[in-house]
Amino acid sequence: MQDTLCIVFLLLAVGVESKGDAEDTQPLCNTGSGRSSSDFSVGHLLVIPADGSHWLGLKAIAQELGRRGHRVTAVIPEISMTMGPGEHYDTLIYPVSFGREAIDEMMAGITETLRSASQSLFERVNGRILHLQKRFDAVLTDPLVPTGSLIARKLGLPTVNLLRGIPCGMDWTATACPSPPSYVPRLLTGFTDRMTFKQRVINTLVRALEPTLCRLLYWRFEDITRRFLGEDVGLAEVLSQADIWLQRIDFALEFPRPLMPNVVLVGGINCEVTNPLPEELEPWVSAEHGFIVFTLGSMVSNLPEEITAVFVEAFRTIPQKVIWRYTGPVPDNLPENVKVMKWVPQNDLLAHPGARAFITHSGSHGIYEGLCHAVPMVMVPLGGDQPDNAMRMETRGAGVVLDITRVTVDDLLHALDEVVNNTRYKESLKMLSAIHKDRPMEPLALSVYWTEYVMRHKGAPHLRPAAHNLNWFQYHSLDVIALLVTVVMLVVMVTFKCIALCLRRVTRKKKRD
Amino acid sequence: MQDTLCIVFLLLAVGVESKGDAEDTQPLCNTGSGRSSSDFSVGHLLVIPADGSHWLGLKAIAQELGRRGHRVTAVIPEISMTMGPGEHYDTLIYPVSFGREAIDEMMAGITETLRSASQSLFERVNGRILHLQKRFDAVLTDPLVPTGSLIARKLGLPTVNLLRGIPCGMDWTATACPSPPSYVPRLLTGFTDRMTFKQRVINTLVRALEPTLCRLLYWRFEDITRRFLGEDVGLAEVLSQADIWLQRIDFALEFPRPLMPNVVLVGGINCEVTNPLPEELEPWVSAEHGFIVFTLGSMVSNLPEEITAVFVEAFRTIPQKVIWRYTGPVPDNLPENVKVMKWVPQNDLLAHPGARAFITHSGSHGIYEGLCHAVPMVMVPLGGDQPDNAMRMETRGAGVVLDITRVTVDDLLHALDEVVNNTRYKESLKMLSAIHKDRPMEPLALSVYWTEYVMRHKGAPHLRPAAHNLNWFQYHSLDVIALLVTVVMLVVMVTFKCIALCLRRVTRKKKRD
Repeated sequence: MQDTLCIVFLLLAVGVESKGDAEDTQPLCNTGSGRSSSDFSVGHLLVIPADGSHWLGLKAIAQELGRRGHRVTAVIPEISMTMGPGEHYDTLIYPVSFGREAIDEMMAGITETLRSASQSLFERVNGRILHLQKRFDAVLTDPLVPTGSLIARKLGLPTVNLLRGIPCGMDWTATACPSPPSYVPRLLTGFTDRMTFKQRVINTLVRALEPTLCRLLYWRFEDITRRFLGEDVGLAEVLSQADIWLQRIDFALEFPRPLMPNVVLVGGINCEVTNPLPEELEPWVSAEHGFIVFTLGSMVSNLPEEITAVFVEAFRTIPQKVIWRYTGPVPDNLPENVKVMKWVPQNDLLAHPGARAFITHSGSHGIYEGLCHAVPMVMVPLGGDQPDNAMRMETRGAGVVLDITRVTVDDLLHALDEVVNNTRYKESLKMLSAIHKDRPMEPLALSVYWTEYVMRHKGAPHLRPAAHNLNWFQYHSLDVIALLVTVVMLVVMVTFKCIALCLRRVTRKKKRD
Repeated sequence: MQDTLCIVFLLLAVGVESKGDAEDTQPLCNTGSGRSSSDFSVGHLLVIPADGSHWLGLKAIAQELGRRGHRVTAVIPEISMTMGPGEHYDTLIYPVSFGREAIDEMMAGITETLRSASQSLFERVNGRILHLQKRFDAVLTDPLVPTGSLIARKLGLPTVNLLRGIPCGMDWTATACPSPPSYVPRLLTGFTDRMTFKQRVINTLVRALEPTLCRLLYWRFEDITRRFLGEDVGLAEVLSQADIWLQRIDFALEFPRPLMPNVVLVGGINCEVTNPLPEELEPWVSAEHGFIVFTLGSMVSNLPEEITAVFVEAFRTIPQKVIWRYTGPVPDNLPENVKVMKWVPQNDLLAHPGARAFITHSGSHGIYEGLCHAVPMVMVPLGGDQPDNAMRMETRGAGVVLDITRVTVDDLLHALDEVVNNTRYKESLKMLSAIHKDRPMEPLALSVYWTEYVMRHKGAPHLRPAAHNLNWFQYHSLDVIALLVTVVMLVVMVTFKCIALCLRRVTRKKKRD
């Protein structure tokens, strides 16, 4: 659901621009003319981001590239959940015709909003292509919302993708990366890499259904793709042209699987991006018994009253302080050890040595931040990839999973007691964290490196596998196998016929004799 | 053939030890007792190398690890082609019962030598296991000669492999790495990643024959494996336990293909390991028209007289100096611009700005050195992976391929004139070289990093894919597919039966009516 929300928000944000007069009042790029293509030292990057937690990694890369002297332009909407300006990059902020409160209302009519927003979005870009083409060296985007990928193709610009994954596996299809269903568990199945026969059957069926799932998720984009680009091309083919895929996964958490040469793993990209904590939090983090961080991600602002009550009652009896990110109505009877905030510096809090536990919905960012700083977790997955993430952490002894819809005060207290006081969780996490952080290069530095690489070399065509030139029949060598089987069958048939003929002659001869 | 030679040499070298009294006079490790397993800062590495050019990369890693304070012990024979002591590692030199001249004679009886050498080798190691086990943190080896892999398993030590590849593809099988024959050309086929239907048929057949080829190449080792380890285990399974595979390939040259998480690309590992040139070469490299480097690898010492004559005649008419590595009899009529040496500092020469061309047998080391320093090549492949290497360079416009058995003076002069005077070769190489050298980390540093990683963490089990727990039937989901096909067929059959039954009833009823 979180992912669907992102799509809506991005489309709204960028698409609604067409309703305003942004084009006339604010040029898409404030400065400069065309740049020499041989000028490698300083590039110009166009960032077309997605909202929510997806923005975190994109922002980190944009900041770092800007700091290194590149020109970075991020196209972001006037109203968004997390996107905003930064010190080291330019923002092109587009006016939107709705207020923040309208975003919630739109949730009810996702499809209609998507349709109206996407229809006008690309027409607007069309009129500007000539201005854009010479200005940028590359596009950085999250292909979950393929807006950036389409614009990159239209502008003929190389692309760097930063992503956690596309739910229907389109990322692996678009990179032509083998994903044998026998040991690569599908997203949302909750399986590990060691499956029973029954699980493998289900996993194979899910694999077989993935193309259909992709069509369901992206059918509007398929239509938009053809109209916007003016060519008969599918979305998967457009995505397959990305030069580098920065995948936010790491094998400390993920099950080992094949990768392609242009896939770079940057799981934990935000881990080292820490800032000092605001002063108001000082008494909370330096408390004697430490503190617990409680967040449910940027998409969940409200909880049903009865669930809120469970958490409040549990917190009342524990010695730790609790820092709770919650934008819903604050309960009246809030205990003194609980601080509710509309936004928390989650990664900075987890990096603090006083952090004893992390109650999380197990979104990929939170999980990697907890892993990075080795904070034991109580996980209450809500949907999307969260149950998968939670299962991976639990099987590695890094935390406890609870069902938030059925959680009781006792469950919660028991889980918190386990992860805070049973040292095996901390020990497991320390080991996992050591493996996770032991890498030749920091994920952020690596992301910056490959983004610069794509700008320097105008892409990375030598990393593109020839598999993209084959259809699925050829790719799996089915035509070759058909030929070989036919040949073998012919040989067998001819041999049998010959033997039969010989036998008949011999028999006839014998009869005659 | 070069590879077969390596196997012979290593087995001879290490195996023949059993004929001497090495065990008593020279302990396998000179110093120290068992080390604390938590002592991460300094490890102890056991290097079990292969001879010939295979030693180059292993030596570079051994040197660098020693320089960084680790204890490194390389087990090398008294007589070898390239192996020897170094500043930063210990060598355990074993006496062998034959002289250098005997090595040539043995060439004629490879199989018999292999058999007798390998028989005694592992028995010797068996007696020492208890001494060895506590002393080392990891084994570094080239699995082309699986001696090191077997010893690592016997000692229960994690393994780092450095290799160019195993001719029958056993490296990709052992890493469970998918290699679709539809676009991953097999070694020794000479195909690119864009194959015609006919080529794909041949490539698929070669793929199908690879297990048989492996059995032919390694059948003695299969037998030795079982006897030495005392368990019913195949060589491929032993190899599959390696923790990290440092593959000496790079996609500047190699065709993009899937990789596994524990495969690290370090093609060009020797590129930056340069030393100052010896003084005697100064007048040769600083000549006005530059110089040409001519080597045919460490395995070829002699050329037929008529081929030597072709090269000598061609060199007589060119303005460049020629530095020729040749251990055969020096021709009488050698022109003044040619210097024949028994050994040349090949990489240092290619790194010199005066290098105009490189006449090479296109072994992987030479190719990567030429690529690194952007020196255009005239390639005369002799066998093994050399025709494949040469083809890759030629298709990228980096040089010209000649057939050494039919080469004429005119061919050679024309080829040299092309690569020296036609700037397009230099230009292509500069571009390729830029891509090759643009990497987040130097290949040698990366190799050292992952070797230290394996020592630090006592292996890398989290990078081992679950594919190793499946048989080929399960891996390809054939059991799942069989079930699904059966179910579909049953459903279809039952449906048909039902329809047939219904139709019959209807028909009967009509008849009755």
